[in-house]
Amino acid sequence: MTEYAVNFEPLGRRGKCQKDESLLACARRLGVGIASLCGSQGTCQCCKVQIVSGTASEPTSCELDGFSFQELKAGWRLACQTHPTSDCKISLPAESMTTTQRIQVEGLEVTVVPEPPVRTYCVKLATPSLSDLQADADRLLEALNQQHQLDCHRVDLELLRNLSTQLRSWNWECQASVRDDEVIALGLWPSQQLGLAIDLGTTKIAGYLVDLKNGQTLAVKGVMNPQISHGEDIISRIAGVINSPEQAWQLQKLTVEAINKLAVDLCAEVGASTEEIVEVVVVGNTAMHHLFLGLPVSQLVHSPFVPAVRQALDIKGRDLGLYIAPGAYVHLLPNIAGFVGADHVAMLLATEAPQAEGVTVALDIGTNTEVSLVKNGRITAVSCASGPAFEGGHIKHGMRAASGAIERLRIESDAIQYQTIDDAPPIGICGSGILDAIAQLYLADIIDESGRLKDGHHRVHSHDNQRQFVLVDEPAIVITQQDLRELQLAKAAIRTGIQVLLEANNCSESEINQMIIAGAFGSYISVPSAIAIGMLPSLPLECFRQVGNAAGMGAKMALISLSKRAEAQSIASQVHYIELANAPNFSQTFIQASYLGRYRLENGGRRKTK
Amino acid sequence: MTEYAVNFEPLGRRGKCQKDESLLACARRLGVGIASLCGSQGTCQCCKVQIVSGTASEPTSCELDGFSFQELKAGWRLACQTHPTSDCKISLPAESMTTTQRIQVEGLEVTVVPEPPVRTYCVKLATPSLSDLQADADRLLEALNQQHQLDCHRVDLELLRNLSTQLRSWNWECQASVRDDEVIALGLWPSQQLGLAIDLGTTKIAGYLVDLKNGQTLAVKGVMNPQISHGEDIISRIAGVINSPEQAWQLQKLTVEAINKLAVDLCAEVGASTEEIVEVVVVGNTAMHHLFLGLPVSQLVHSPFVPAVRQALDIKGRDLGLYIAPGAYVHLLPNIAGFVGADHVAMLLATEAPQAEGVTVALDIGTNTEVSLVKNGRITAVSCASGPAFEGGHIKHGMRAASGAIERLRIESDAIQYQTIDDAPPIGICGSGILDAIAQLYLADIIDESGRLKDGHHRVHSHDNQRQFVLVDEPAIVITQQDLRELQLAKAAIRTGIQVLLEANNCSESEINQMIIAGAFGSYISVPSAIAIGMLPSLPLECFRQVGNAAGMGAKMALISLSKRAEAQSIASQVHYIELANAPNFSQTFIQASYLGRYRLENGGRRKTK
Repeated sequence: MTEYAVNFEPLGRRGKCQKDESLLACARRLGVGIASLCGSQGTCQCCKVQIVSGTASEPTSCELDGFSFQELKAGWRLACQTHPTSDCKISLPAESMTTTQRIQVEGLEVTVVPEPPVRTYCVKLATPSLSDLQADADRLLEALNQQHQLDCHRVDLELLRNLSTQLRSWNWECQASVRDDEVIALGLWPSQQLGLAIDLGTTKIAGYLVDLKNGQTLAVKGVMNPQISHGEDIISRIAGVINSPEQAWQLQKLTVEAINKLAVDLCAEVGASTEEIVEVVVVGNTAMHHLFLGLPVSQLVHSPFVPAVRQALDIKGRDLGLYIAPGAYVHLLPNIAGFVGADHVAMLLATEAPQAEGVTVALDIGTNTEVSLVKNGRITAVSCASGPAFEGGHIKHGMRAASGAIERLRIESDAIQYQTIDDAPPIGICGSGILDAIAQLYLADIIDESGRLKDGHHRVHSHDNQRQFVLVDEPAIVITQQDLRELQLAKAAIRTGIQVLLEANNCSESEINQMIIAGAFGSYISVPSAIAIGMLPSLPLECFRQVGNAAGMGAKMALISLSKRAEAQSIASQVHYIELANAPNFSQTFIQASYLGRYRLENGGRRKTK
Repeated sequence: MTEYAVNFEPLGRRGKCQKDESLLACARRLGVGIASLCGSQGTCQCCKVQIVSGTASEPTSCELDGFSFQELKAGWRLACQTHPTSDCKISLPAESMTTTQRIQVEGLEVTVVPEPPVRTYCVKLATPSLSDLQADADRLLEALNQQHQLDCHRVDLELLRNLSTQLRSWNWECQASVRDDEVIALGLWPSQQLGLAIDLGTTKIAGYLVDLKNGQTLAVKGVMNPQISHGEDIISRIAGVINSPEQAWQLQKLTVEAINKLAVDLCAEVGASTEEIVEVVVVGNTAMHHLFLGLPVSQLVHSPFVPAVRQALDIKGRDLGLYIAPGAYVHLLPNIAGFVGADHVAMLLATEAPQAEGVTVALDIGTNTEVSLVKNGRITAVSCASGPAFEGGHIKHGMRAASGAIERLRIESDAIQYQTIDDAPPIGICGSGILDAIAQLYLADIIDESGRLKDGHHRVHSHDNQRQFVLVDEPAIVITQQDLRELQLAKAAIRTGIQVLLEANNCSESEINQMIIAGAFGSYISVPSAIAIGMLPSLPLECFRQVGNAAGMGAKMALISLSKRAEAQSIASQVHYIELANAPNFSQTFIQASYLGRYRLENGGRRKTK
């Protein structure tokens, strides 16, 4: 039987495709997750792929309908409608991947020239004798400086406490880890030099174990932030701390314990010890940053909402309770404002948005959504209280992106087509599914532009005095009128942020050249759905970049490169922060932004187009 | 009745002296302690004073016997034989003072231009508002830098943890203490800026509370070193640590607790809080330095006896367990060698020995005696294991310098004249008394130059198979043959150190221009006695300077002046240390030095003179 070699990028998954097998079927067989809702009918248009090299069957009528001539010429196809006619290299855009697939893709490396803050040197010392009476620490420093042309002046106190015994047991030869002018770790040559990058999210903590010598990621792991037991969102955690100050220490301890455990797990994966971690970088929103360090948070929630500290910090890990190399430091990237934290700086760093030509809008969607607009190198930022709706919170059948969550949804005539995570039976609906749902309901004219569920559709019922739309009959999964209101508030907050930034920069929506969407939720959403309801500006799809956990990437970059650290500091100090509630026309903009539909704000007016 | 105004210097004690009252009687009435053994007979020559201005009665025959014409012309008199004939200013040499008096003199100020490592600034911040959203820490740093032309970049982590609350409660006006580029303390303006200098001795811990702004000493206190419960001397404490490593932490904790208590007591004297202490300087011998920091000590007692660290250190007080200002540092002066520590550096700093013209020998006598010889700016040092004899240890009726201890002693014909501390009934004999005893026994030909108690003297008895000399009949206070052996070993060790340094510098004894004797014991001894037994070189008395607790003075100087700190570092790095046991002719020199009597080592020979 004729077989062709296929190569799915950017995953690098290779395999054979039989002559009559569709690319979708082949991909699934090879374990490559491509989204599809319509049962390979070619109607949902979810499974778009690009054939980068090689040839394939002629386009079907669905494809001719769905793609422009230019797109087809560029190799764009629907995977369910296409079978190869030669060896092929196929590129998967992020929006065609399933959630599970995307989580794997997130691990992709950013290429940064390693320029680590900690460097390791092998050093041989002369044995002390009655004619060579130098002190142990001075002996180490002098040998280091002489043998490696360094200018090292200090040995960490904890190291000093073991230095004399260790040097003697190692027969005066060892490996010294040097940071600035300080020796922060000692070991037998050769041992690993590990770095740990932490993205400290309100909900999740992501850890990346990195080889500092070459910048390679050795292991990745995400865990839930155990602070959740003290409140799902930042505001409730801060309220808890204000009411009972000792909670601040409980929260700090919980985070530190979680990071310690994460470090143990990550190190176990590569057979290392946490004592080999010689540098940590932590990014998080300002509240998570402050709670991690034990800094006060009350001023974050009282006008004018200022951080305790904005600048980057270097703190000994042991002073925070971390079990890493005895003298190792934790570097915290700088914050921007009370509600725009180091994670946003890390995102800007990773996406290189500040260097982009033209106008770039970069946003990280979450309970709080931070948005930056870059125009000619000038960066303006706002923070929008978008709430938990897009994380499944405050939504009747909302859930986090987990097995059985509806992650894609389409209303085709009267039928509801959906895809669940892991193709498991549906048990709820996660953020990207919720966004699809509201967009599809609006496009199908089941809700009006004010977000009201219209009468008349056979799936619209009343229950407990409120209307709801039944997505799945058994088990019942519905979208209630209240759910729609929550979503509208969330999307209005985000859109208001974008509009305020455009106005502050005297820009129109059409001038945006690039729209970067970062963060877990942002990576999984259907951009067309977000455009359809007016959450994101109506721009050509190629303007959008869904970049995954860019904050984590930025943390990794700052971990392995001092230049990137300096760049982060420079970005943070450049950003002009606008307090949203203080912006001119804020209320008017917010009200307009809460309507559904594509729209442009021009001359203060609203022009709606479906 | 005719009265004259008298002024006793350097104490600055002023009063009236009646026409026929002796200076000694007047001094005692005014609480000025002048030594006297002979009951004002003019025979013991202990009460030498110098009349600096004013006139007095004609010299008596005892004075004409005791002083040279030049001395009398220079105003030298015996206080018991002299009464003023006008208003007088009288200078008391250290050797004429009683121990109690000297302890008071020790508190004299060294004049150093204050150049403190921590400076305090009053700073007013703008209140944050929606149009001024700077973070609290950044706001503080910027205001400080702008208002005081500083280049301050960091705020201590512990301060950050309270900063936001404090700034708000202080209405955005405060006092910031800055060290290098770091804010280490905050308070309401104006509050005190205190420094604490600690001389961490094996036996005693001396603390000096200093006003950092003007360098004035506000309070002084000495306490016993509680480590004594783990061994009287360094070697036994180190042995304890080697046998059971957790003892290192017990010793560290004991020291820290003692310093914390000392700080509380000193602050209480001036109505301050220990949180107002913004800088601490600690000096001590290398072992005390290491035990205080929790550094390893085993290598100190194994050849080649090297310290774990020699260079000066700056460590956050809280990392050592000190309760001072939250961000304050402890500065530890540099060590020189395993048995020549930061206290010796501090002594050299305080006495300015390194800058002296000609040849200067500076020594600090204790269980371990450190000796430095300075010649043309070149410093050479040795350490001598002089043992506890001069502190009253291993001596049958030896005791520390406390009430009732015989501190001065003279054998006049057959009578024993002595003076006790506080003029209390005798209960034992302290270091200076022991030294006088051996010198007087030798000069009275009761012991020979080998240290053997001769037969024949009616006060020499045998008891428990050993000879002893009875000083006091009831309660019996004796000097045994074994005591004499201990003293001989001690004096031999010290003298060997001096000789080795002279030989290493190709110097003869007669070339020594200045002999500085520091430390508690050194300040109280009779220099003529030390010369008589050959412990110190036979030099004119004006060559000797007894400087009291010069290590404590040096610590104070380094506390208030960054220049002095740099000077200490420079001294430590210049010192050429000689391991005594490694010196050529060590054994020969030691054997010769163990004989009693004034002597000179020339051409390897010994020439004895009484």
